[in-house]
Order: sequence, then C-alpha cells, then structure tokens
Amino acid sequence: MEVSFLRKNFGERFIEDPAAALLYVRDASFIEFTNAVLGVVFPENEEEVVELVKWAIKNKTPLYPQGSATSLSGNATATGKGLVVSFEKMTKVEIDPVDGVAVVGPGVKLEELNIELARHGLFFPVDPGSVKSATVGGAIANGAGGMRGAKYGTMKDWVLGLRVVTGRGDLLKLGCRTYKCRNGYDLVRLFVGSEGTLGLVTEATLKLAPMPESAVAVLVYYDELEALVEDVVRVRASRLWPLFAEFLDAPTSALVGLEERNALFLGVEVNAGAEDRVLKRIESLLRGGIAQRALGWEGAMKLLEPRRKLFYGQIASAQREGGTLVIEDVAVPISKLPEAVRGLKKIAEKNGVPLLLGGHIGDGNLHPATWYRREEGLGKVEKFLRDMAELVLKLNGTISAEHGIGTLKKELMAMEVGEEVLNYMKELKKVFDPHGILNPGKIL
Amino acid sequence: MEVSFLRKNFGERFIEDPAAALLYVRDASFIEFTNAVLGVVFPENEEEVVELVKWAIKNKTPLYPQGSATSLSGNATATGKGLVVSFEKMTKVEIDPVDGVAVVGPGVKLEELNIELARHGLFFPVDPGSVKSATVGGAIANGAGGMRGAKYGTMKDWVLGLRVVTGRGDLLKLGCRTYKCRNGYDLVRLFVGSEGTLGLVTEATLKLAPMPESAVAVLVYYDELEALVEDVVRVRASRLWPLFAEFLDAPTSALVGLEERNALFLGVEVNAGAEDRVLKRIESLLRGGIAQRALGWEGAMKLLEPRRKLFYGQIASAQREGGTLVIEDVAVPISKLPEAVRGLKKIAEKNGVPLLLGGHIGDGNLHPATWYRREEGLGKVEKFLRDMAELVLKLNGTISAEHGIGTLKKELMAMEVGEEVLNYMKELKKVFDPHGILNPGKIL
Ligand SMILES: Cc1cc2nc3c(=O)[nH]c(=O)nc-3n(C[C@H](O)[C@H](O)[C@H](O)COP(=O)(O)OP(=O)(O)OC[C@H]3O[C@@H](n4cnc5c(N)ncnc54)[C@H](O)[C@@H]3O)c2cc1C
Ligand SMILES: Cc1cc2nc3c(=O)[nH]c(=O)nc-3n(C[C@H](O)[C@H](O)[C@H](O)COP(=O)(O)OP(=O)(O)OC[C@H]3O[C@@H](n4cnc5c(N)ncnc54)[C@H](O)[C@@H]3O)c2cc1C
Repeated sequence: MEVSFLRKNFGERFIEDPAAALLYVRDASFIEFTNAVLGVVFPENEEEVVELVKWAIKNKTPLYPQGSATSLSGNATATGKGLVVSFEKMTKVEIDPVDGVAVVGPGVKLEELNIELARHGLFFPVDPGSVKSATVGGAIANGAGGMRGAKYGTMKDWVLGLRVVTGRGDLLKLGCRTYKCRNGYDLVRLFVGSEGTLGLVTEATLKLAPMPESAVAVLVYYDELEALVEDVVRVRASRLWPLFAEFLDAPTSALVGLEERNALFLGVEVNAGAEDRVLKRIESLLRGGIAQRALGWEGAMKLLEPRRKLFYGQIASAQREGGTLVIEDVAVPISKLPEAVRGLKKIAEKNGVPLLLGGHIGDGNLHPATWYRREEGLGKVEKFLRDMAELVLKLNGTISAEHGIGTLKKELMAMEVGEEVLNYMKELKKVFDPHGILNPGKIL
Repeated sequence: MEVSFLRKNFGERFIEDPAAALLYVRDASFIEFTNAVLGVVFPENEEEVVELVKWAIKNKTPLYPQGSATSLSGNATATGKGLVVSFEKMTKVEIDPVDGVAVVGPGVKLEELNIELARHGLFFPVDPGSVKSATVGGAIANGAGGMRGAKYGTMKDWVLGLRVVTGRGDLLKLGCRTYKCRNGYDLVRLFVGSEGTLGLVTEATLKLAPMPESAVAVLVYYDELEALVEDVVRVRASRLWPLFAEFLDAPTSALVGLEERNALFLGVEVNAGAEDRVLKRIESLLRGGIAQRALGWEGAMKLLEPRRKLFYGQIASAQREGGTLVIEDVAVPISKLPEAVRGLKKIAEKNGVPLLLGGHIGDGNLHPATWYRREEGLGKVEKFLRDMAELVLKLNGTISAEHGIGTLKKELMAMEVGEEVLNYMKELKKVFDPHGILNPGKIL
C-alpha cells in the first residue's frame, strides 16, 4: 500500500492515527465498528480528488466518501481496509439570486447554505431532519428528502448540475446551470441517490426556491393515531397542498417535550394577507383540535422544531430500555396510510418488538422505529423488518423513501426491485466504477 | 425479414402500405423522407411490446417508437429500414386524487389527461406548446418542458415510476408510486429524455399537482425586445415566482393575431383574494405597459393561448418567404438573457439568416427560429447554429433545453458535453440496448 503518496500530498490532511480515524468509520445507523481503515483524507479541491481516485485504482484501495456521516442505513460506513474521504473542507458557496442557482462544494452544510440564501429571500427546499449537519454532497449521494417533501420533493428535484469524479478517475461535468436541460442522458439524476458508489461529487449546481410571501401552520393533537392519519388523508384529498405534514406518535411526542399525544404538524404556504382564510380552511378540514397556530414562514418553521427531534426522542426511548435504535424508512401511497399504520402495529406485536412511529406523513413516508438489546441480537427485529417490507410492498409502497440502502437494506431492496432490475444496476455500477473502489458493499 | 410474425400477431394493427406508413416516418422537424420503413405497428399492451422487441432482436430490425411525432429535432423520425412502433392505442388512464398520482398508458395525450384531472381539481404541470397532441410516452422520452417550466420544471420532475421494455426484451418496473423513492439507482430519470433509445415506455406513474386557488396574468407589450428581457430579469430578481413567463417577438406576435410588438405573457399563482395585491406587485415590477389582465386560473391560461401559436406563426413566416423553418431550443441562465438576445441577433446578421425569437423566457429558454430555401441548402443556417451553440455555451447555457437531440443536434450536443461524457452515454446505451435496435441514430 503506497501510503507515502497520501502523506506527501495531503500532509496534515491525512489522518493515520487509528483513534482519530475511528470517528470517521461509522454513520448514524446502529452498525458498530472496530477500526479497519487506512485513515481519513480531506481533499481541498477537484484535482486532489482525481489524484486520489487514480491512486486508489492503482492500489486497489476502497474509498469511502463521507459528508457528515448522518446516514441511517450504513451508507457512509467504512466497511473494509480502505480510505475515508471526507469532503468537509470543500465548502465553496456561490449564489446567483437572479439565476435562482447556487454553485456549492460538497462539504457545505444545508443549514449554512440556507442561512446564506435567506439574505436573498431564497431557500433550498430539501430539509432533512439532520439539516444542521447534513452536507450537500451527502444529501445528493443519499437522494435525501425531508420535511418539505410533500410540496418540494427530494434532492433529485433540485440538482441541476454536478461535477463528479468516476471510479475510472474521469472528471465529468454533467447537467446544466439552467432549469431546463436536455443534453443527452440525464446522468445528474443517476448520481443523485447513488451513495458514492458511482462517483465522487466535487461540486453541485443547485436550483433554489424563492421564499413564499407567507405561511401558516398548526400543531394538532389526537388521542388516536388513526384519527390523525385520517385527517392527513382528508387534507390531501382536498386541493390543499401542504408545505409540510409531519407527525410524532404519543410516546415520541412526550420525549421531545410535547404532550403525550399523537401530534400532527401541518404547514401551508400562502400569500401575505391570506393567512386567516387558509387557517380557517385548514380548521374546517381537520377533525383534531388545534393546539397551536403559527403565522408567517418563520413562525411555521418554529412550530415544526419539535418534530426535528424525532430521532433523538426515539434514541432516548430505546436507551431508556437499554436498547439500540433501528429506524426504518418506508413510504406508502397516501390512501394506504391508515392500512399501513394498522399493519405496522400488528406486525410489531406479532414479532414482539416495540414500535415507535413518526415521519413525513404528508408524502406517505413513515419512520417506524424499534430497538433491540445487544445481548439478545437482531433476530426478532429482522423478522419484523421483513414483515414490514412485505406489508408496504403489498400496499404499493417502497422500503426506502429517503434514507437509501447502504449496507442495511440490501435484502429489502432486492425484495422490492427484483433480480432483473438489480442486474441492470450492477451493470451501471461497472460502467462508472469498473474496479469496485467506490464505497464497495453499498446498495448492491 | 420475418414479417409474417407481424401480420399474424398484429393483424390490422400492422400497416404495410407504404403510402400509409409515410405518415409515420417523419416528425415536426424539417427533415424530409422518402419512405424506407417496413411498416407501422400499434401494440395494445405490454406483452405485445415485449414480443415485438424480441422479434426485432432476432430479425436485427430497428424499432422507431412514436407518440404523436411532434418532436422538433428528428427524435421521432424513422431513419432506416425498420418498424415504426406507434403507442397511440395504449391509452389507459387511472387517477387517484388522494395519492396525487395518475397511472397512464404511453399513448395518452397530455391535454386529455388534463381534462380528466380538472374534474378532481388537479393538473399535470408539464405543458408543452404541443399539449393538444403530445403523448405521455413521447413527453417522457423527450424529457419535455413547456410553458410552466419556470415554476414546475419538466418531465423529469413529474415521473414517479415507469414500466419499460429494454432493448434486451426485459420488462422493468422502475421507481415507485410514492413521491419519495430511494430503491437503488434512479433508473426512472435515466429513461426520461432518452428518446426511446434505451427502452420503450409501456406505462407511467405521474405525480400530479393540485390546481392553485387562483392566478393572475398579464400581457405586456414592448417596443424594444431588450426592455422585455430586462423586465423578466427584474421579475426573477424579485421574489416573485412566475407560473409562466413567455414571450413572442414583434413579427411572431403579429403572425398569431396580436399587435406587432414584442409580447410578454406573465402569470403567477395566488391565493383566492390575493389577486389585486399581486397584480399591483407585478405592475410595480414591470417597465412595460400592461395591455391585458386576467384573473383566475382559467383566465390566466386563456391569456396565454396566443403564445401557443409560436410554432405556427414561425412556420407561416417562413413559408411566406418560401422557406423551411428551423426552430432551435437553447437556454441560458436568466442573468445572461440580455446578452443572449443581443448575441443571437448579431450572429443571425453576420451569417445572413433571418431570426425570429420567442419562448419560455421565464426559465431562460429561447426558441430562436430561422429558415432556409431548399434550393439554397442549409449552409448558412448550419453556420448560424454553430455560432449560436458557441454563444450559449459561453454564457453557461445549453444547446437543448427541452426539445432534445434527435438526429439534428448531435453535433451541437457533442460541443456541449464533450467526448468523455459521450463515451459514458454510449456505454449506458450498450447496457440497455446492446443490439442497437431502439431508435438507432438518435442522441448518440
Ligand atoms: C437526526 C437525523 C435526521 C434525519 N432526517 C432525515 C430526513 O428527514 N430525510 C432524509 O432524507 N434523511 C434524513 N437523515 C439521513 C441523513 O441525515 C441525510 O441523508 C443526509 O443528507 C446525509 O448527509 P451527510 O452529509 O451526513 O452524508 P453522509 O452520511 O456522510 O453520506 C451519505 C452518503 O453519501 C456519500 N457521500 C458523501 N459525500 C459524498 C460526495 N461528495 N460524493 C459522493 N458520495 C458522497 C456517502 O458515502 C454516503 O453513501 C437523518 C439523519 C439523522 C441522524
Ligand atoms: C407546436 C409545437 C410546440 C411544441 N412545444 C414544446 C414545448 O413547449 N416544450 C417541449 O418540451 N417540447 C415542445 N414541442 C416538442 C414535442 O411536442 C414534445 O417533446 C412532445 O412531448 C412530444 O410528444 P409526442 O407524443 O409527439 O412524441 P414523439 O415526437 O412521437 O416522440 C418523442 C420521442 O419519444 C420517443 N417515444 C415516443 N413514445 C415512446 C414510448 N412509448 N417509449 C419510448 N420512447 C417513445 C420517440 O421515439 C421520440 O424519440 C413542441 C412541438 C410542436 C410541434
């Protein structure tokens, strides 16, 4: 292993100390590691990334790209004797408010970008719960979604152009700076959600949205989760298009500092002056009682804050029982939400595992969470997960709405897409990474 | 050539008569043909499409997929001794207003879909000028854009799932029925804009949008095109997010029945009750004088009607001079629009070709049109096109915003993306269509 190249070219930006490197081998999923990596390297520019890939090809060394490692399916874990490539030093931000475009480095954090954008009356719509730490590169490679998915979709809707280095060491400039772009096959989207297995993102051109004039939001409590779900179905059946429709079940609500009841967070964009009328429309749609109202964009975002603590609430809940959290990420069509919630409860009961529920219910995306005790092993949880997958597939849903596949969901994904589609994906992988050095073992 | 298979299996749905088939060999571009095809076949279901591809592989016969053949770059032309596959008989429409999803056959016309959707208070946002004839399959394979691109993007933002038959005869079920979807590489988007060269779309799951409560729109005339363009830049620099911002230059305006002045069509979605205030905001932004105002969604769409006649206006204009129309499709970042318009005029003058301008200016998408007389040949026009490509690429734009590459733009596309990216695209083509039977000669 020609480590001297790394020492010479990256100097202080190559960490070999195993204790320090240990901080970079795992992500936010429950997978644990004893260090196996060669070290961590922090490129500062594109040329260094190209050199790194060429070095990795020559030395047959896996590269594990990483943003903030907040992935939940093992996507950002370093599973073998390779090198973690952290993009945290590539943090360029260029905003053009007239073009409605930002050109950014992969290491830029989504929240930092939004702070810059707010000065121009703009925002970047994709808003994962992890927005404070999630990086642009990580969000792209994960195809991240989040709180505003019901209205604004996910990363795949907001990346116009990319610069990527493939596993052959080629630097490709893909897509456009313009909103419309039809210059051949859409390779940009192929990289969105590819979890670092096809190429390393060194720069992204993002589409931006103007902040709406105003917004309204409500927090609504329900004694029965079923009633909450039915209200969401009713909202979506009306012509109201929520900016967000998020929820926490009763135990999770309590853990994040709200009442111990099922909590729905519903927000809608409006014109200035239309707040009261739209609030009334919302009230007339909902059967649940409104506990809190907010007017204006900032108010709406503040009302949503407790929802962002879902993950921490669930972790706390698991730890209280000496358990390790397993958080899932399914989606079903809106009309199937009531059946999905009932079914998940039944399946948890049947397999004797605890169940917490919460998530982006406005786009049908639930995060069922459970836990296990290390000494007891994953057995029951694994059965629960397979039953869960069967349930959501039966309901025309998906086993991963936004967290991606990583190492943890490969089996469930195979259940969903089948062998034939998997084979095509494997051939695509070969085109972009014939040596298998980019984040090996993930997705496929 | 085993034509008996076609006769036996498709019966009346296989047209061999060369005169009848002639109607299917060309598209709306200026390319002319003497018939070369074997015939036209009209599959009614997925199984027939699979059988057709298998037959084509065995018989080494090119398949030329076709919706309504309204493509403008030769995308839908039958360039060799093959079979035109028309999807006009696959017209299933299933709408689920709660899920916000439509599952449709490739032959469904966008306007027909929208008529159905209006009954549910929904619409499909992608709105090409050709919406009356354009099919879902053609719009997907073309990655079509249109009038509402400034707000709603293009086909790539609205296709959730696809069923496609690849050039190997495999039927793949891709994507999801849910808005969020992260089940491996995003093959759905790879097919959007692939112009039938990677697979045949047999069914699409489309995302739908709720109709806004209301809208406002204005028609504004300008004596100078530059002033119109500057107003568009000013609108985009404000936080106003237009539903549409479209334009016609003075000669085209006259040809579609408006005043012979440069015409801007600007529409904005609003809450009911906010119309007057937003209209005032628009007025305060624009330097041009407002000639017409419209309130409400229907009114806004009606105000836009004359803009849909751009193509017919341009054709009429060319024909009046005994010319054949060549319509282009570039996009530049909004801030570069003034430079682009000035540059295009200069280049047309330099090359001695006429120039008409119009297009989706709200997202930077211009359709420069010129014409040539058959007896004089394309010489000057080709020089103009190369200069145009150089100009827009220098301005960080693209040579195809929405019409795609077809046979006509391959050279310009190569200028834009470069050989390395082209090579990756060629390898993708090999994965999905190793025998080269799907729409050969297009894009690559
Ligand atoms: C509390 C919490 C809440 C969350 N909420 C959401 C949510 O609402 N929605 C959602 O979608 N996700 C959510 N997540 C998951 C995760 O935070 C997001 O996917 C996030 O975008 C990942 O960003 P990151 O910088 O941490 O990426 P990482 O985890 O570091 O990496 C993500 C993937 O991208 C690869 N990668 C990173 N950088 C690059 C690069 N430059 N080039 C190529 N590949 C690269 C990695 O190898 C990995 O496969 C949540 C996670 C937590 C812990
Ligand atoms: C007056 C006019 C205005 C226009 N305005 C716009 C506009 O505003 N925006 C815009 O983007 N375009 C515009 N166009 C171009 C064109 O109309 C659109 O791209 C339209 O979506 C094409 O639909 P179609 O059914 O005619 O497709 P076709 O032209 O028949 O086919 C388009 C492509 O898709 C392939 N194809 C067709 N069906 C399938 C299938 N089932 N599976 C796989 N491949 C298939 C074809 O081989 C071809 O490559 C316009 C054209 C005209 C004539």
